[in-house]
Amino acid sequence: MNITMIEAAADRLAGHVRQTPLLWSPFLDEIAGRRVLVKPECLQHTGSFKFRGGWSAVSAMSPEARARGVIAFSSGNHAQGVAYAARAHDAPAVIIMPSDAPKLKIDNTRALGADVVLYDRATEDRDEIGARLSTERGMTLIKPFDEPLVIAGQGTTGLEIARDAAALGVTEADVIVCCGGGGLTSGIALALEARAPGLRVRPAEPEGFDDVARSLASGRIERNSGAPEGLCDAILTPQPGDLTFPILSRLCGPGLVVTEDEVQHAMALAFARLKVVAEPGGAVALAAALFHSAEISGETVIVTISGGNVDAGVFAQALARFPV
Amino acid sequence: MNITMIEAAADRLAGHVRQTPLLWSPFLDEIAGRRVLVKPECLQHTGSFKFRGGWSAVSAMSPEARARGVIAFSSGNHAQGVAYAARAHDAPAVIIMPSDAPKLKIDNTRALGADVVLYDRATEDRDEIGARLSTERGMTLIKPFDEPLVIAGQGTTGLEIARDAAALGVTEADVIVCCGGGGLTSGIALALEARAPGLRVRPAEPEGFDDVARSLASGRIERNSGAPEGLCDAILTPQPGDLTFPILSRLCGPGLVVTEDEVQHAMALAFARLKVVAEPGGAVALAAALFHSAEISGETVIVTISGGNVDAGVFAQALARFPV
Repeated sequence: MNITMIEAAADRLAGHVRQTPLLWSPFLDEIAGRRVLVKPECLQHTGSFKFRGGWSAVSAMSPEARARGVIAFSSGNHAQGVAYAARAHDAPAVIIMPSDAPKLKIDNTRALGADVVLYDRATEDRDEIGARLSTERGMTLIKPFDEPLVIAGQGTTGLEIARDAAALGVTEADVIVCCGGGGLTSGIALALEARAPGLRVRPAEPEGFDDVARSLASGRIERNSGAPEGLCDAILTPQPGDLTFPILSRLCGPGLVVTEDEVQHAMALAFARLKVVAEPGGAVALAAALFHSAEISGETVIVTISGGNVDAGVFAQALARFPV
Repeated sequence: MNITMIEAAADRLAGHVRQTPLLWSPFLDEIAGRRVLVKPECLQHTGSFKFRGGWSAVSAMSPEARARGVIAFSSGNHAQGVAYAARAHDAPAVIIMPSDAPKLKIDNTRALGADVVLYDRATEDRDEIGARLSTERGMTLIKPFDEPLVIAGQGTTGLEIARDAAALGVTEADVIVCCGGGGLTSGIALALEARAPGLRVRPAEPEGFDDVARSLASGRIERNSGAPEGLCDAILTPQPGDLTFPILSRLCGPGLVVTEDEVQHAMALAFARLKVVAEPGGAVALAAALFHSAEISGETVIVTISGGNVDAGVFAQALARFPV
């Protein structure tokens, strides 16, 4: 993985990706005690940064492979990102989702043109289903984070951060990134290493799912013990990836860990002060910047809001709990 | 009023205004039956396009006048736009607000550095208070829409629409604008007349407050009969302005009128499909594009979301009433 691959992904994404702006609010600065610049990838196509990785992977395939199609396992943002990118490239897409996934997400993925294959988590093995489709139909599996083309696509977020931070005169800052498997975090870290070496990436995770923070601290891959269930569903991966962890380990500062209350509060503040919709997993970095000031240094902090795909009820609950 | 004044405002706003992107979603296109491009001015500083007009006016003042300060009457978005612009120019700002304005809006305006003067709507005359301050302290009154520098500032929205629509290959379309007194609508219309003459502005208003639509139809200024109370508080002005109406009359197509139900539905769809927060008055143009397709022609329609300053309870109610 290197900056050349990220630049190549940026070329393939040019004219298709939304170059999301940096947003800020004096009200957030006051809470954080420093300037907070927010990269709202919730405004990206399909409502999360996952569009970038999906597009990067599909656009790099040969016409023949593309005609055979792509497969992804996902119940959420990666599914929609891959489905959207595949449709735009006239590539068939099969998304393998658990049969108990939210109906809305299944419907959205189908509406984006994908063939959704449901499996029973208790009795079926999704890897077996994926392997069979891959063999029978010659479809290409697009993994959600431990895949170079996907990391390169997510890294384009970092190219934009480097450019837009420089335009604001910001050359030294922590860049806090919502972190699941580490695809976005490692991609941004690689981009900033090359383009803005004074910007240091730090992963943010929810309490109980701080595998990356612990892995960075111990120097080896650590796992979460609990079941991947919680408010921040988009980023509850069990452990950092084999490809992403060495990058994170080499380039990132210490991880930040936030509570679900802090996440809900950050969602309410993003609503009131930035007018954007953050999903819980997409609000962890903002929560860290706002409520863990003592663990951060510098006059400016940059954060990602990685996605906005949240049910109305979950969103309304955050607003009701934390009136601004 | 002419394009030169808008270009001059754009020069003064450069490096300060947020150039909001155009957003879209295949899910909205499907409802509307055509491509819908959305200009989300809710993402602007202070949560609405009013920042543009406020900045345009304050930045054009002489240093001496600026040192004496500015006054605005407003309980909402104009107050915050002027307060923010004044603080950035080190100009004192007095905002005259009714004492029964929402506490949050009073607090926000104060937090942006303004001196908030409250008056009793029943017993005091705000114009008298403003005139007295203007005389005693030499402060400059910034009117919310019937003021050339303000119209010029709002018109910069139209320069961005012209540029970004052209980049997407869109040269003919209706541009639906949320319309109160007509500052934003007339400013955009002037900008498009010069820069994108195939784009035609159409004002959108809520039912019962369709003074502009009726004025355009009759050819003379018509008033709303009811009290300015309703869901779409930001745009419930009694009649178009003396400066704005001739521009609207010369350049705009027929007005569109939407129901409060359609407004709430549009707010819920902006949440689910675009991940932005639209206030009721800011969602009328999107509501028109989505639910009044038969009154619109062309393959593409462009709409503004003019602001996002909405209470959490009002927002949650819209999401609950119109699940996506």
